Amino acid sequence: MRIGVLTGGGDCPGLNAVIRSVVRTASAHYGSEVLGFRDGWRGLLEDRTTPLDVAAVDGLLTRGGTTLGSARVAPERLNAELPQMKDVLATHGIDVLIPIGGEGTLTAAHLLSEAGVPVVGIPKTIDNDIDETDLTFGFDTAVSIATEMIDRLHTTAESHQRVLLVEVMGRHAGWIALHAGLAAGAHLTLVPEEPFDVEEVCRLVTERFDRGDSHVIGVVAEGAHPLPGTMDLRDGGLDEYGHRRFTGVAQQLGEELEQRTGKEVRTTVLGHVQRGGTPTSFDRVLATRFGLHATIAAHEGRHGQMVALRGTEIDLVPLEKAVARLKTVTPSRLAERAAFTG
Amino acid sequence: MRIGVLTGGGDCPGLNAVIRSVVRTASAHYGSEVLGFRDGWRGLLEDRTTPLDVAAVDGLLTRGGTTLGSARVAPERLNAELPQMKDVLATHGIDVLIPIGGEGTLTAAHLLSEAGVPVVGIPKTIDNDIDETDLTFGFDTAVSIATEMIDRLHTTAESHQRVLLVEVMGRHAGWIALHAGLAAGAHLTLVPEEPFDVEEVCRLVTERFDRGDSHVIGVVAEGAHPLPGTMDLRDGGLDEYGHRRFTGVAQQLGEELEQRTGKEVRTTVLGHVQRGGTPTSFDRVLATRFGLHATIAAHEGRHGQMVALRGTEIDLVPLEKAVARLKTVTPSRLAERAAFTG
Amino acid sequence: MRIGVLTGGGDCPGLNAVIRSVVRTASAHYGSEVLGFRDGWRGLLEDRTTPLDVAAVDGLLTRGGTTLGSARVAPERLNAELPQMKDVLATHGIDVLIPIGGEGTLTAAHLLSEAGVPVVGIPKTIDNDIDETDLTFGFDTAVSIATEMIDRLHTTAESHQRVLLVEVMGRHAGWIALHAGLAAGAHLTLVPEEPFDVEEVCRLVTERFDRGDSHVIGVVAEGAHPLPGTMDLRDGGLDEYGHRRFTGVAQQLGEELEQRTGKEVRTTVLGHVQRGGTPTSFDRVLATRFGLHATIAAHEGRHGQMVALRGTEIDLVPLEKAVARLKTVTPSRLAERAAFTG
Amino acid sequence: MRIGVLTGGGDCPGLNAVIRSVVRTASAHYGSEVLGFRDGWRGLLEDRTTPLDVAAVDGLLTRGGTTLGSARVAPERLNAELPQMKDVLATHGIDVLIPIGGEGTLTAAHLLSEAGVPVVGIPKTIDNDIDETDLTFGFDTAVSIATEMIDRLHTTAESHQRVLLVEVMGRHAGWIALHAGLAAGAHLTLVPEEPFDVEEVCRLVTERFDRGDSHVIGVVAEGAHPLPGTMDLRDGGLDEYGHRRFTGVAQQLGEELEQRTGKEVRTTVLGHVQRGGTPTSFDRVLATRFGLHATIAAHEGRHGQMVALRGTEIDLVPLEKAVARLKTVTPSRLAERAAFTG
Repeated sequence: MRIGVLTGGGDCPGLNAVIRSVVRTASAHYGSEVLGFRDGWRGLLEDRTTPLDVAAVDGLLTRGGTTLGSARVAPERLNAELPQMKDVLATHGIDVLIPIGGEGTLTAAHLLSEAGVPVVGIPKTIDNDIDETDLTFGFDTAVSIATEMIDRLHTTAESHQRVLLVEVMGRHAGWIALHAGLAAGAHLTLVPEEPFDVEEVCRLVTERFDRGDSHVIGVVAEGAHPLPGTMDLRDGGLDEYGHRRFTGVAQQLGEELEQRTGKEVRTTVLGHVQRGGTPTSFDRVLATRFGLHATIAAHEGRHGQMVALRGTEIDLVPLEKAVARLKTVTPSRLAERAAFTG
Repeated sequence: MRIGVLTGGGDCPGLNAVIRSVVRTASAHYGSEVLGFRDGWRGLLEDRTTPLDVAAVDGLLTRGGTTLGSARVAPERLNAELPQMKDVLATHGIDVLIPIGGEGTLTAAHLLSEAGVPVVGIPKTIDNDIDETDLTFGFDTAVSIATEMIDRLHTTAESHQRVLLVEVMGRHAGWIALHAGLAAGAHLTLVPEEPFDVEEVCRLVTERFDRGDSHVIGVVAEGAHPLPGTMDLRDGGLDEYGHRRFTGVAQQLGEELEQRTGKEVRTTVLGHVQRGGTPTSFDRVLATRFGLHATIAAHEGRHGQMVALRGTEIDLVPLEKAVARLKTVTPSRLAERAAFTG
Repeated sequence: MRIGVLTGGGDCPGLNAVIRSVVRTASAHYGSEVLGFRDGWRGLLEDRTTPLDVAAVDGLLTRGGTTLGSARVAPERLNAELPQMKDVLATHGIDVLIPIGGEGTLTAAHLLSEAGVPVVGIPKTIDNDIDETDLTFGFDTAVSIATEMIDRLHTTAESHQRVLLVEVMGRHAGWIALHAGLAAGAHLTLVPEEPFDVEEVCRLVTERFDRGDSHVIGVVAEGAHPLPGTMDLRDGGLDEYGHRRFTGVAQQLGEELEQRTGKEVRTTVLGHVQRGGTPTSFDRVLATRFGLHATIAAHEGRHGQMVALRGTEIDLVPLEKAVARLKTVTPSRLAERAAFTG
Repeated sequence: MRIGVLTGGGDCPGLNAVIRSVVRTASAHYGSEVLGFRDGWRGLLEDRTTPLDVAAVDGLLTRGGTTLGSARVAPERLNAELPQMKDVLATHGIDVLIPIGGEGTLTAAHLLSEAGVPVVGIPKTIDNDIDETDLTFGFDTAVSIATEMIDRLHTTAESHQRVLLVEVMGRHAGWIALHAGLAAGAHLTLVPEEPFDVEEVCRLVTERFDRGDSHVIGVVAEGAHPLPGTMDLRDGGLDEYGHRRFTGVAQQLGEELEQRTGKEVRTTVLGHVQRGGTPTSFDRVLATRFGLHATIAAHEGRHGQMVALRGTEIDLVPLEKAVARLKTVTPSRLAERAAFTG
């Protein structure tokens, strides 16, 4: 059998571990061949490939990023070029395609599947916002890096009696903020799922200092936003896909807090460090298992599916279901913050 | 309400995070008080306590170990002294006891519960061998440390064309070995659940070098043991609880391998570093959620239960069920190693 | 004898380790007492103190920040209030003062010394810009964090064929940028000591991509600035001490590069994470030795001096000499970048 | 010009960074070629080589180990085969040889130099026992790993009121033990330079527990040994070079302590993890600078020398002087432990 692999969307720790796992499983279990498409869907559109054998994936387990490269392609272009992609797959004799990516990539995978291409998807998102799977690889690494950084910021804030706001990733879902906030003992965690009230944030800050506490650490998801009418957020405009940009919510909230409370506020935007470098052991295991089970599914003819973590097991779910909605933080998980806020 | 807390069994990253979470939740949600018993069940037997308020748990989230201390007590002693323990609890007006510990601690908790004491247990085990919960805190930290160490050993083994055996924790269950082996790209993983055949291990080593590979990394759970008749393991005798000691299986296997294959073999026993130090972000979140939900259950009168991770949610399971058996590595999880062995 | 201690200026990993070392040495070697002044010189001006005995410094070795707190005070205020500070020192019976801090703190220490107060200074600067000592504690930690972050950014840049600019600390001296750039394999390192030519930077970027290289990592000290006439840097104005602010040089250079080369550029500002958290082992040893030798000097009557690392030994140098000039990167050290640029 | 490179002796973080630096400097500054000999002197004896260009060293900066491999060769064999080695060097047109290694490698380098071969040595030793240089690369990484491990062991020891002995590397010199002991707050540090008195060690342990301290951490260099008559150390025999083996001093001391004091003692032998994995930023910078300056010296005809760190500068010292004696811990450095012991 001949398997095609591509990695779509943004960089994510564990992508290389998945690629290695697919290749090793295909080779060891089935004697199958694997062909990589370069730079995500673009490589499939433009027929740019690289053969992947066991030697080619040596050392990939611990390396961040994706050796196949990745690039974003507008969904409408993908939709328009389905026939072209099917041609390329046919030319190379690809029996099953394993696309690894986030919402966009999996939606495209679903379209291909609907168009008759055998596909097994592998979910990838730092933000943990893909539905129908407990977790995706990359998320644990991102939370782990954010936590380590916030651990470090505590001591600076303490020594100078400051408010420190840390902006973490998460445009539409606050999972990284929630987990890093819990893990690093933040006094305040703001997520996109629940608009914040600036008055309340000010009150929390003031109360902590009034009680004699030495500092305040706030974790702010990049997609967090104020309750209408409580604070004006400068508009970041729309990005290339027509999504509204939330640029610099932490910075703007910091300025507002400083003005309203008179306390010294500093802001740190963690940015790309959250998505780079070697994956945590958790993500390496999850990525390896995803690759393994996707390759088994590919060979067993269970197509149009996505691998998913359910408890301790790797399961298959229909791609259609997986891309139907984003997985955002539930009210019960939001409620867990209460005892640790303030 | 008045909550009692104690930590039993071996040290484990996240214990302090649980204690903090119990105290913060009891205080913030319910205005309840928390009393800590020192050195596990011994503190309850000998009436040694320490009051735990929010100030007392400040800074505990990131600290390894247990601020309450821990000591092992023989189960029969606990059984014999149930009345004494009930007296101490009554003296202090404890409404619910929250014991945090492994199989032994939870079994004692179950006994107390049967004897009429309101109890909510919190599972703790580096080895991940407690049943009825997907995971316990401490396990991710142990796997993470073992993985980092094995990452480091790869380069030494490569540079000198050696076999390197790394002994990790896991007397009865091979979870740490399995996950660290997958995460660190071990060529060989030996677990207690599946006796190893020394011949096969030798064959694997020889084949790798014959293929031109530069080195072999083997991960060996401390409870791994050879198939009867394939190798003599020196007997470690029985420990204080009557369990057979498996001392130094990696060292002994290493000597055997060196003799049989003529290759240079080195052994590293990771030991206590796997259970110390600051918990990973994953374990901090899990420990915090366990403490939170155990305290809620304590206040809601849901006793005789243990908190458990099920998928992404924290659930309650009867203590009786949780201690009925050890959770060992399943055949399907063992099978996952195949594509990554050799 | 009675020793006073204070920590001035910005937060720095190792401050707590110095405090612990001073207290342990004073106590163990001399049976002397130590009194801490809170929030730097402000604590001395306002007579806010805290007694420091061996129990009080337990656990400080590994903790970032300063348990004494720190605050910046304008130099002219210090100068004006010398008599007031001498009074407070006399009231508490302080025989020798050990101020720990950067250029500002050591200049104030020199003034006090000139005014007859026995003083032994301990140099502290993340930026490594204090003269007459090979190194100061905090620098190794900052370089180490920056390097780890840049290691992570490599994989993201590679996967997306980007230019990534990382802004690190260093207003007047490029030591952090130089060392982190060397340690993390940056393709470009910009420091305050040598204004950069935007044309050349563009050429380097273009050449790398033309050669088929996958990405460019540039490390930019916050005080780096363009050659006059090659690029307009938005003026950050003056800060509260009348120093020119260099805000966002990396961000501005990134925009310029993107426009001129057409390549995708991302910018990360590391910020406060560089100065927080537990010190590296190197900084813990250096901080401990500084504290030890400063306390010995205090008891041996060698005042008006600063401890300094010279090769492998801790030496004393006159405060006057130490504060005469900033230590910037030398031309020979700058030249070392050449083989690793591009 | 044509440069030969080889790496001798044990694995050491930074070796690959030196190789990369030599190749980049030779290529960028001088347009010279570099040839690597495989597996240390053995590659030179047996004429096994690998060409090293800039592409071949890509990614080596952060990788532990040595891509050239390393093997130990008995000094007498090297001495006997000098003519053979000169022939191989001549065959390949090597103008200067840059051997990277410890005492053995540098002694061989000196012999070659005396025999008329242009040589520039680069010192390498985890143990930091090479004379005439302030430090060598690898040492900071080893201390850093040992410190991190001891940090972790503190919490286990605290929670169980134990004595924990940690055996670190250092057969003839106690530098790693001294620095890791200072950095990790050990209560006891034993080094080869000063035989220990078991009575005193017992007294220290007993005093700490009598004072109410929760635990004792002891750092023991593998070459530490008892004062004659105070304790019998089982003899490890001689190794292949006729050196006395000190096997398991920490384990044996632990048994003795347990017996004499009645306290629970645990022993951890860090072993190979100290010499593997990615180098610290400090070691990457030092390794890079050593490679750079050795290559410059090679081209400037300054042969028979070794590069050395002196303060902040890289200097050259005659190989003859560098190998005349081992650099052991000085009495003044040993004295620095006093305030931190107990």
